[in-house]
Amino acid sequence: MSKLSVSEARELPVLQDDVAVPCCPPLTERPLSAEEAERTAAMFKALGDPVRLRLFSLIASHESGEACVCDISDVGVSQPTVSHHLKKLKEAGLLTSERRATWVYYKVAPDVVATMSALLDLRR
Amino acid sequence: MSKLSVSEARELPVLQDDVAVPCCPPLTERPLSAEEAERTAAMFKALGDPVRLRLFSLIASHESGEACVCDISDVGVSQPTVSHHLKKLKEAGLLTSERRATWVYYKVAPDVVATMSALLDLRR
Repeated sequence: MSKLSVSEARELPVLQDDVAVPCCPPLTERPLSAEEAERTAAMFKALGDPVRLRLFSLIASHESGEACVCDISDVGVSQPTVSHHLKKLKEAGLLTSERRATWVYYKVAPDVVATMSALLDLRR
Repeated sequence: MSKLSVSEARELPVLQDDVAVPCCPPLTERPLSAEEAERTAAMFKALGDPVRLRLFSLIASHESGEACVCDISDVGVSQPTVSHHLKKLKEAGLLTSERRATWVYYKVAPDVVATMSALLDLRR
């Protein structure tokens, strides 16, 4: 069995340097480079907190796929904490937001989440 | 728009209490319960570290989908650190391991990773 080396990884062009975007084909195809792993791990980390994951599922499953803090109750944390977690999910690129009147509405970023899903789709 | 409440979530039976298994349909279908979020977030958290994610991709993309520490080089961390991270991935349920002679071989747990992928497959 030959030694695995990340330097063997083909580098894919990164299209949007200033925006959090996941990259790369399914993980069975080739190892991630350090830079790719850095940006992609940040997205998985965002879902690695139970409260954030619940909030993400609340928004993803809400009618029209979006929700504001005003729609969320009963998760066992205060509204400022909810806002804090939603901001983290947005910073990781998993949610987008839009202010309408008093409230900020959060929506799942479908392309980003689809790429994360594809990355873990290891059927050869 | 009605208030979202996690208590509205349908509870799915958990089949394997002692093993790390992800659960649940795609996140668009219904919010996760606290217990579901707890166990599933631990899996995303395991991939939320850049070194661990690289190691996971090295194993997933290696021939036959398995590798031992002896196959891994050039990730910028020591072999004990590699072993530590592989153990964490195993504890999270994402890898299985088997000792053969001197080395422990790690393999991706395909069902667990497939369920994580499906959870993030939000196409309705």
